[in-house]
Amino acid sequence: MEKDHMDYAVELDIAIKPTTPVPMIGQEYGYYVGAGNPLFSVGGGVLREALGTILKRYHALRGYKLVETPILARTTLYELTGHLSFYKENMFLLDIEGDEYAIKPMNCPFHVLIFMNTLQKYQGRVPLPFKMFELGKVHRYEIAGALRGLLRVRAFTQDDAHIFAREQDVLPSILEIFDMMKDVYEKVFHIPVHGGSVKLRLSLSDKSKIGTEFMGEPEAWEFAEEKLFKAGEEIKRKYGIEFFAEEGEAAFYGPKLDVVVYLGEEQKEWQIGTVQFDFNLPKRFKLVEMLKETHGIDSLYMIHRALLGSVERFLGIYLEMFKGRLPFTLAPLQAMVVGIKTGDEETDKKIEQMVSEVNETLWKNEIRTTPYFTTKTRLNKDVRKIESTVKPPLMIYIGKKEVESDKVFARPWDFSAKRRKGISVNPSEVMSIVEDMEKDVVELIGRSVRIPVDLGYLA
Amino acid sequence: MEKDHMDYAVELDIAIKPTTPVPMIGQEYGYYVGAGNPLFSVGGGVLREALGTILKRYHALRGYKLVETPILARTTLYELTGHLSFYKENMFLLDIEGDEYAIKPMNCPFHVLIFMNTLQKYQGRVPLPFKMFELGKVHRYEIAGALRGLLRVRAFTQDDAHIFAREQDVLPSILEIFDMMKDVYEKVFHIPVHGGSVKLRLSLSDKSKIGTEFMGEPEAWEFAEEKLFKAGEEIKRKYGIEFFAEEGEAAFYGPKLDVVVYLGEEQKEWQIGTVQFDFNLPKRFKLVEMLKETHGIDSLYMIHRALLGSVERFLGIYLEMFKGRLPFTLAPLQAMVVGIKTGDEETDKKIEQMVSEVNETLWKNEIRTTPYFTTKTRLNKDVRKIESTVKPPLMIYIGKKEVESDKVFARPWDFSAKRRKGISVNPSEVMSIVEDMEKDVVELIGRSVRIPVDLGYLA
Repeated sequence: MEKDHMDYAVELDIAIKPTTPVPMIGQEYGYYVGAGNPLFSVGGGVLREALGTILKRYHALRGYKLVETPILARTTLYELTGHLSFYKENMFLLDIEGDEYAIKPMNCPFHVLIFMNTLQKYQGRVPLPFKMFELGKVHRYEIAGALRGLLRVRAFTQDDAHIFAREQDVLPSILEIFDMMKDVYEKVFHIPVHGGSVKLRLSLSDKSKIGTEFMGEPEAWEFAEEKLFKAGEEIKRKYGIEFFAEEGEAAFYGPKLDVVVYLGEEQKEWQIGTVQFDFNLPKRFKLVEMLKETHGIDSLYMIHRALLGSVERFLGIYLEMFKGRLPFTLAPLQAMVVGIKTGDEETDKKIEQMVSEVNETLWKNEIRTTPYFTTKTRLNKDVRKIESTVKPPLMIYIGKKEVESDKVFARPWDFSAKRRKGISVNPSEVMSIVEDMEKDVVELIGRSVRIPVDLGYLA
Repeated sequence: MEKDHMDYAVELDIAIKPTTPVPMIGQEYGYYVGAGNPLFSVGGGVLREALGTILKRYHALRGYKLVETPILARTTLYELTGHLSFYKENMFLLDIEGDEYAIKPMNCPFHVLIFMNTLQKYQGRVPLPFKMFELGKVHRYEIAGALRGLLRVRAFTQDDAHIFAREQDVLPSILEIFDMMKDVYEKVFHIPVHGGSVKLRLSLSDKSKIGTEFMGEPEAWEFAEEKLFKAGEEIKRKYGIEFFAEEGEAAFYGPKLDVVVYLGEEQKEWQIGTVQFDFNLPKRFKLVEMLKETHGIDSLYMIHRALLGSVERFLGIYLEMFKGRLPFTLAPLQAMVVGIKTGDEETDKKIEQMVSEVNETLWKNEIRTTPYFTTKTRLNKDVRKIESTVKPPLMIYIGKKEVESDKVFARPWDFSAKRRKGISVNPSEVMSIVEDMEKDVVELIGRSVRIPVDLGYLA
């Protein structure tokens, strides 16, 4: 049977399958953590930390405020936002001292509260557009039957941002969001973004139902939909990416633009990024009135957006579509230095020494690496095993030929070619290969993300 | 009335006071988020991100695995750990599809699950001691009357680690933990750690009650308490820090060592760091049996430790004791470049230009800075306001004298002197003052933590 994303997650030490038996205890992990609640293992912790660091730094550099909001809140908050009347069945509720509380199903209400506090406290001084980013953990009820691995869960992390914008900021904001999507898909994940690999879907109102099914003023819908159209046209002109509009498919609270990518050998279609107008929350929180009062500004659009959507779901898609190949910066075990022993004592000693030196160089530079020894006869079998389990993006081979020529044979995974390319380099040049593998991320965030956790036991 | 930690938190833009009215809505923030649920504002998000980055990187560099565990789990997990029988009243419970779930009150059960998965999957290969770190958000029920600002909350973040150690690792592990406490207190927070400022409290069993009030084997208690004693003696020898033992004060699951620091003008006593043996979880999860089966090792001690304990509580204490003075790396607004205008057009133009250049240098280097203009007559009043609100650790003044001499007057906050020291430097040397203010943190984690969020509107 073909492997699915959870098989890859287990091989790479990212997540623990809920059906795995807990040793000595006679039950499965799922029995303890419950359905739809992913349990990440050690490699998964590293991956999430690396990805979180990249995303937070990337957003900070582009003018986003980084926030962190509570898990719990009284349902009075969701009464105010309206969620309690139309979303209650998806929320986890509990009682504390006679008050009803909910585990947050989304971050937006908190972001609005923080924005309001900011407007009030720093009257006349808050620069717009005001952009707020959170890697926020949300929980939503799904029936047990609908759950699937990381693709459909009850607890997930959104790369969630809200933009509070004046009229004139709206179009530039949408275009900037798309450029950020392109950046992150291409530079962090090696997902190409061009006409053949991506399309945009515009979900618009049905004009006859504005005021009934679609809340808010016709002028606001018209304005927002026009800007989405303009953005679509601009993106098409710039990158050759097609967009198509679906009338009547908007959310009740606003129109949206979704990014659909084609991934994997079969070029399966996945909706990932999203840009959505929200006419509901500004109205409920009287944001326009407040902006007028505190800053003398009388137009405001609230835009919600996510580049990856749910980090868990995105990761699940990625593992499945890329068959467990992870970018260098995110892979739990990043590099492996393989010594191929010959049986000749003197040569083997030199091989050991060279392996140790190269591995040490990588480790000192905070690369998650491990030495590994095999023989010429076992080599193929061992490599097959490694390539079908931990898959370190960088493999370095050292055998007789390498010690004699004082070169190592490096085989970094090449995402564009979907295979390893081989290069002979001096041992001192190993870090330049690493830098090459990291360069796209460095281009985004201005520095490498190195998290030196020793995961040598994985291999 | 004297300011408390929440006043400072509000001034620095770290947290929103629950009693603050939400503008236009006619209720307080606390009404929406609920009691004991801190709502961090924009500056708080930056501070938490900076602190989180320091702590995670610091732990990774010292061999800790970074993990991230779920918020929810079925109470079957807490039945297994025993918490459901002795801790249920502190847990937030909810029902999902007829199953009882709990919001996690602690991270340990998940860390044990991850450790077990690791042992089983990588048999014979897992290096001990195995150390796991998480900045984990936990929720515990406290009665509303007991809640106070950030000091006593229902939702908090633990800098939580668990160490799974063989007998021979126990003493070195405790000593390493203390050195890490010293590192973090001194280098991140400027809290001196020596005989006069810190003491250790050992909470031991009452030997006559082992087996009844104190669970586990007498030999294990004896071993653990002896190691704690030895560690206490070694720390006393090395740093002159006193320790005292209290019999019968251990937790039922193991003895512990707490670090008590004296802070503030009145040298008030605060318990912060903790090292605790846990005899309960290894027994419940049959960890020794498992380690024997998978690694042929037949002794195991599980040590729980936290350097800060609850990040929220620690922050609350810190703000109160240091009167809102935050370390350079953590302060929301880190620097302010103050231009003192003269009324003379030509001079003022030069002042503006110099302010802009210096501020630009800082901002390009990812320092959270803002320009600010005043006059000689308003200067004192403005400075008093700034020092009693946002308190940027680095103040830089530029007036007539400065443009004439091409020097700026820098006044970094000096924690050891508890005042600002003044230095005249060339504009090009401003970053060396920054580097000096960051150097203790760089010493710990090998690089600066710069999070370039524009918080200029705070001042």
